[in-house]
Amino acid sequence: MIDLALLPDGGLGWLDGSGPESHLVLSTRIRLARNLAEHRFSAQATEAEREAVLGMVREAAEQSVTLRRAMVFRLDSLPSLDRQLLHERHVVSKELSVPERGGVPRRASAVLLGRDVGAMVNEEDHLRLQGLVSGLSLEAAYAAVRRADVELGQQVAFAFHPQFGYLTSCPTNVGTGLRASILIHLPGLVLTKEIHRVLQGLSQVGLTYRGLYGEGSEVVGNFFQLSNQTTLGQSESELLDHLSRIVGQVIGHEEKARQILLRDAPSILEDKVWRAFGLLRHARSLGFEEAMNLLSGVRLGVGLGLVPDVGMYTVNRLLIETQPAHVLAMAGGVLDEAEVPVRRARHVRMILEAEAGRRG
Amino acid sequence: MIDLALLPDGGLGWLDGSGPESHLVLSTRIRLARNLAEHRFSAQATEAEREAVLGMVREAAEQSVTLRRAMVFRLDSLPSLDRQLLHERHVVSKELSVPERGGVPRRASAVLLGRDVGAMVNEEDHLRLQGLVSGLSLEAAYAAVRRADVELGQQVAFAFHPQFGYLTSCPTNVGTGLRASILIHLPGLVLTKEIHRVLQGLSQVGLTYRGLYGEGSEVVGNFFQLSNQTTLGQSESELLDHLSRIVGQVIGHEEKARQILLRDAPSILEDKVWRAFGLLRHARSLGFEEAMNLLSGVRLGVGLGLVPDVGMYTVNRLLIETQPAHVLAMAGGVLDEAEVPVRRARHVRMILEAEAGRRG
Repeated sequence: MIDLALLPDGGLGWLDGSGPESHLVLSTRIRLARNLAEHRFSAQATEAEREAVLGMVREAAEQSVTLRRAMVFRLDSLPSLDRQLLHERHVVSKELSVPERGGVPRRASAVLLGRDVGAMVNEEDHLRLQGLVSGLSLEAAYAAVRRADVELGQQVAFAFHPQFGYLTSCPTNVGTGLRASILIHLPGLVLTKEIHRVLQGLSQVGLTYRGLYGEGSEVVGNFFQLSNQTTLGQSESELLDHLSRIVGQVIGHEEKARQILLRDAPSILEDKVWRAFGLLRHARSLGFEEAMNLLSGVRLGVGLGLVPDVGMYTVNRLLIETQPAHVLAMAGGVLDEAEVPVRRARHVRMILEAEAGRRG
Repeated sequence: MIDLALLPDGGLGWLDGSGPESHLVLSTRIRLARNLAEHRFSAQATEAEREAVLGMVREAAEQSVTLRRAMVFRLDSLPSLDRQLLHERHVVSKELSVPERGGVPRRASAVLLGRDVGAMVNEEDHLRLQGLVSGLSLEAAYAAVRRADVELGQQVAFAFHPQFGYLTSCPTNVGTGLRASILIHLPGLVLTKEIHRVLQGLSQVGLTYRGLYGEGSEVVGNFFQLSNQTTLGQSESELLDHLSRIVGQVIGHEEKARQILLRDAPSILEDKVWRAFGLLRHARSLGFEEAMNLLSGVRLGVGLGLVPDVGMYTVNRLLIETQPAHVLAMAGGVLDEAEVPVRRARHVRMILEAEAGRRG
């Protein structure tokens, strides 16, 4: 099993709550889709062609500052649990974490993990560069990923069309190849039932939303990923400016909803938050979805200053560590299915107890 | 407002968990119905006649050892909240706690509260003597109430028929006038869904069951009052022996149910107990019925040794103190209705926090 502690930042730096608007925004992620010129897209390529692409990317990475020291995992030779762990850490897509055929994901697929930037190889595109930072910080995320993009682009030629821009496997990514995602926590809008109105508004201004785990994933725990729908026809900075403005508005709506809740239903709000805390602190069995929802309640309380003894990083960290593969990994990779919720609850209790001891 | 701390034992001695089988049986109560010879039953009597009865009982009580130092409350002049408090403490019946007409209960009704025994005057019968002790202890409860019965019977003549025994207002009490009630906690039988079978069995052997607050009251929190259905045709000791034997069987069933739960579903059981604890320990708003149900869960955990830091007396005490009038009294008698659940939750948190500090 891979040792997640060896990942840059333990793989959790993006959750440390240090970035702007961290009480609402968990993280900003920017990914750039790139393909190597003169090579067939990964899905159409033979295994040998994909191996060639992977070799070129690794060589280019070794010449770069950003990815020279990256940890490299070949996903086609990694055990299933490790792939799941990397997926739950938001550094490998769902597609590359599940088997394609023969029980492994696509042959020659890999992920390179540097300090500020990661790169999936032979996913839908040859290269998917990802910058992931704490809070709302499009500039920081873009700077990190752009640097890797420039460095790698000096070593290999990317497929680029003078009129359309970067060419990608799926036409929806053509142009900038840029997708920015803001992982935001909107319990206030959910509780005030304003969320649907706000989400509908997003689609009218070119934004889309998903749940915690990318396309098609359900919204649990009031966590939403907001991202740009179009990649074409605007420059990178125009795209990011627009997204930043809209996310700013969503933040304003959420702040207002929280103020309304505090004004009109303070004891209902407080009760909700503390019940969630009480269950997390004492339950002996927790399902994944319930844990998410309870963590959402506590996170709201921490954000509003109602729960002084718990830090935002602790809550964010538990959102990651309560996921199925993480729970399984904590138990050394072997766990009776019925034991998973018991083990999850034990971990949550332990972390919250340690937190109380540290802060109390 | 009356000061409950001035009651003998603070009025809570019967909940201290010191009696036999206290992990299952909260209390044993025995009441004797008596009427003064040559006086009309209370419901048919004029106010003057009831006053005369009350006067005779008080005089007799002053000559007795058991009730000489009793606190005396005239229920017809006591504020509604105080009557509710005494009802919630199980020393005044529902009938005498609610208004009959003109906003007060029956004129000349009263309660005398001694250390081991209490007496309601001008309830359904002229005199209802009550012995209330911790745990399963029919002998102790009967000894207390019998002593008062003998002492008062030396001062006043009770209506007694050589064939039928003691005469009472309602024919179901004729004979011994004795009703013994065991307040027992049966969560194991409820969780294993065996409770209906057990309760049905009771009616076949002359026992009846009710909820926590006497006739017609709903069962909440898995607390049941088991009592004898008949008062006629058997001696007091025969009645008590029979009840004791049957309650012994119910206890056996409950113990067995708990063992089955511990064997077959230990983590579900533990989770249930600790979730209840977590909510009580942290919720900011608690309804009465929810509090009862959660206390039931914690009480089960305490009984099984799963919750080491909480004492049985604390749980028993909270069952009393979370009732509506007690919550209101804690707030000085004035409380916005919406504040009652908030105040209830605050009290529970405070008591459980103090308990953790004392034991931790």
